[in-house]
Amino acid sequence: MRYKAAIVQNFIKQIFLASGASDNHATLASNALISADLRGVDSHGIARLSGYIRLWKQKRLNVTPNLHIVHETPSTAVLDGDLGVGLVVAQEAMKIAIDKAKIAGTGWVAVKNSNHFGIAGYHAMQALPHDMIGICMTNASPLVAPTFSKDRMLGTNPIAVAIPAGEEPPFIMDMATTPAANGKLEVNERLGKPIPEGWTQTSNGKTTTDSRALKEGGAMLPLGSDRTHGSHKGYCLGSWVDIFSAVLSGANYGPWVPPFVSFLSPPPDTVGEGIGHFVGVMRIDAFRPADEFKSHMDNWIRTFRKAQSIDNNQKVEIPGDQERRIEQERLANGIDIHPTVIEELKQLSKELKITSSKMGFPI
Amino acid sequence: MRYKAAIVQNFIKQIFLASGASDNHATLASNALISADLRGVDSHGIARLSGYIRLWKQKRLNVTPNLHIVHETPSTAVLDGDLGVGLVVAQEAMKIAIDKAKIAGTGWVAVKNSNHFGIAGYHAMQALPHDMIGICMTNASPLVAPTFSKDRMLGTNPIAVAIPAGEEPPFIMDMATTPAANGKLEVNERLGKPIPEGWTQTSNGKTTTDSRALKEGGAMLPLGSDRTHGSHKGYCLGSWVDIFSAVLSGANYGPWVPPFVSFLSPPPDTVGEGIGHFVGVMRIDAFRPADEFKSHMDNWIRTFRKAQSIDNNQKVEIPGDQERRIEQERLANGIDIHPTVIEELKQLSKELKITSSKMGFPI
Repeated sequence: MRYKAAIVQNFIKQIFLASGASDNHATLASNALISADLRGVDSHGIARLSGYIRLWKQKRLNVTPNLHIVHETPSTAVLDGDLGVGLVVAQEAMKIAIDKAKIAGTGWVAVKNSNHFGIAGYHAMQALPHDMIGICMTNASPLVAPTFSKDRMLGTNPIAVAIPAGEEPPFIMDMATTPAANGKLEVNERLGKPIPEGWTQTSNGKTTTDSRALKEGGAMLPLGSDRTHGSHKGYCLGSWVDIFSAVLSGANYGPWVPPFVSFLSPPPDTVGEGIGHFVGVMRIDAFRPADEFKSHMDNWIRTFRKAQSIDNNQKVEIPGDQERRIEQERLANGIDIHPTVIEELKQLSKELKITSSKMGFPI
Repeated sequence: MRYKAAIVQNFIKQIFLASGASDNHATLASNALISADLRGVDSHGIARLSGYIRLWKQKRLNVTPNLHIVHETPSTAVLDGDLGVGLVVAQEAMKIAIDKAKIAGTGWVAVKNSNHFGIAGYHAMQALPHDMIGICMTNASPLVAPTFSKDRMLGTNPIAVAIPAGEEPPFIMDMATTPAANGKLEVNERLGKPIPEGWTQTSNGKTTTDSRALKEGGAMLPLGSDRTHGSHKGYCLGSWVDIFSAVLSGANYGPWVPPFVSFLSPPPDTVGEGIGHFVGVMRIDAFRPADEFKSHMDNWIRTFRKAQSIDNNQKVEIPGDQERRIEQERLANGIDIHPTVIEELKQLSKELKITSSKMGFPI
């Protein structure tokens, strides 16, 4: 069934409020989470809401964090997320970066002691209204094997870059550093469908089409899929994200990154605090006048859109196009939420004593 | 035949001096070029020397450039390379970035009006002795088709990131945003050997194993190779590099990037000046004490090295390992230079009136 975005978002906010978050933090968290649902990244939206609350109940997540800068220079800061909800912590980090960029030209914030932050693209996009470029990365719990290895050492560690244009919509890339996002694997696994070779390997390190291989001790492959097609480059990208997010900030890295799901315990030893993010912001006019830049971005975008298609039914797209299309459709027609998720949300409402009269959704 | 690195490097320097470069610029250019030969990127080393000189003879390259900053903030600058040799221009950009980072914590320099800069990794590595992280990217003339397109719109647009460690050698990634570097294609083409599917497509946009396809109007594919395996992510990465290198700086982007080879003319219209680079430097202690960071990098590196191998003959590597091994071997045993390149160099010596008595190599 489809639900209006505003109603779903309000429910998310009420859940965070009921768990003790401030109105400001509940709003920030709901903004980030609903953005994932609107942009078509269903695995990172309201489907994760009960996951956050379960972590909070286990005291592995703090809904009233004392977010504070532990070190800074004119263009950098390290933010201690105080185990806060990543959805909120990353937005605070972006705010700090934007403030620094106003004075220094750029701002770069490494974040430790945080948690799952939703979709990287949402945070990078915070820079756009300021005529700034936004960059955002995060590490995540280990699922990906380095080239030549059987072991899960890296998360799907996404990189997002948001770049303003003038008349054209912004350029927004938001990509896991793996061939496919984990959400796609899960869909195939649920349906018992095979997956393409080159997405995962078995516990023995053989590539496989079995969508259950990951659950059975296998690993995801880095972008590039195999050495011949550049999986060592995907491994480089994932490593880069891990080091910037966690070694720079003082968070956990590699196999030490704690899991998001509450039924898995964090590794017994740790090398840092929580999970880590890295965000950056660059003022466009720290390089050239914003109008000039944007008119060239328009030209860049139009030129790439006009690139000749192989198949007339499939035009060349600009990073961000697909998510924008889905967002427009879902803003108009509502968000389709899986019945299993609805059941979870009803349970959550009950646990947090949210009454139907107050909400209208999902009960 | 193998030649000592110092002798080869001195020859490179003499060639730049003979073409009118200053002693400083000739040294910088020879440092960067020999680094490619030492690190095993043969396509970007002395094999390109005559290419630079041919461009200079066509007045498409300026060996006595007036490198100057056209705009700056505390953490950013735009450098006009004055059509200089990219090998030198990029090093000047890194110097500016390093100086900015000393005060602002980070430094970011977009470069326009430049030329081929050799290997990105060499420039990123300039940050290491300063206990800084170095980042370097450049656009290049169009060879790569966006996902779903027949047209060559992007260069192989590399990204390099150099990160210091403590007792372990630094983490150095230096990757084209394509499955394989163009150099590998050229080798197969010379040998008439097929290439793996997923590296290139024909002029009709079909993937092919024909190593001549690129020369016959085809295109290279982005990292990921096809949509199912994430080629749209490789396309994102290449686009990111193009925009940061050229739209930020005021250089040519996309299909307008001028070719390195002198037998191809630059596009008749232009949207900027020369080719563009983007470099960045972050002081480690702008985030956390350098010693602390480096000891965690040592732990990161050792942990990844110990990841279980799929095949005992092929251990997990850290980005930079392979290049370091080749460098040690070549520093000890010399650099093997292809007879065709030697012939070109002899011709170059003659043209620039460099006598054998002065050099000992290659004549």
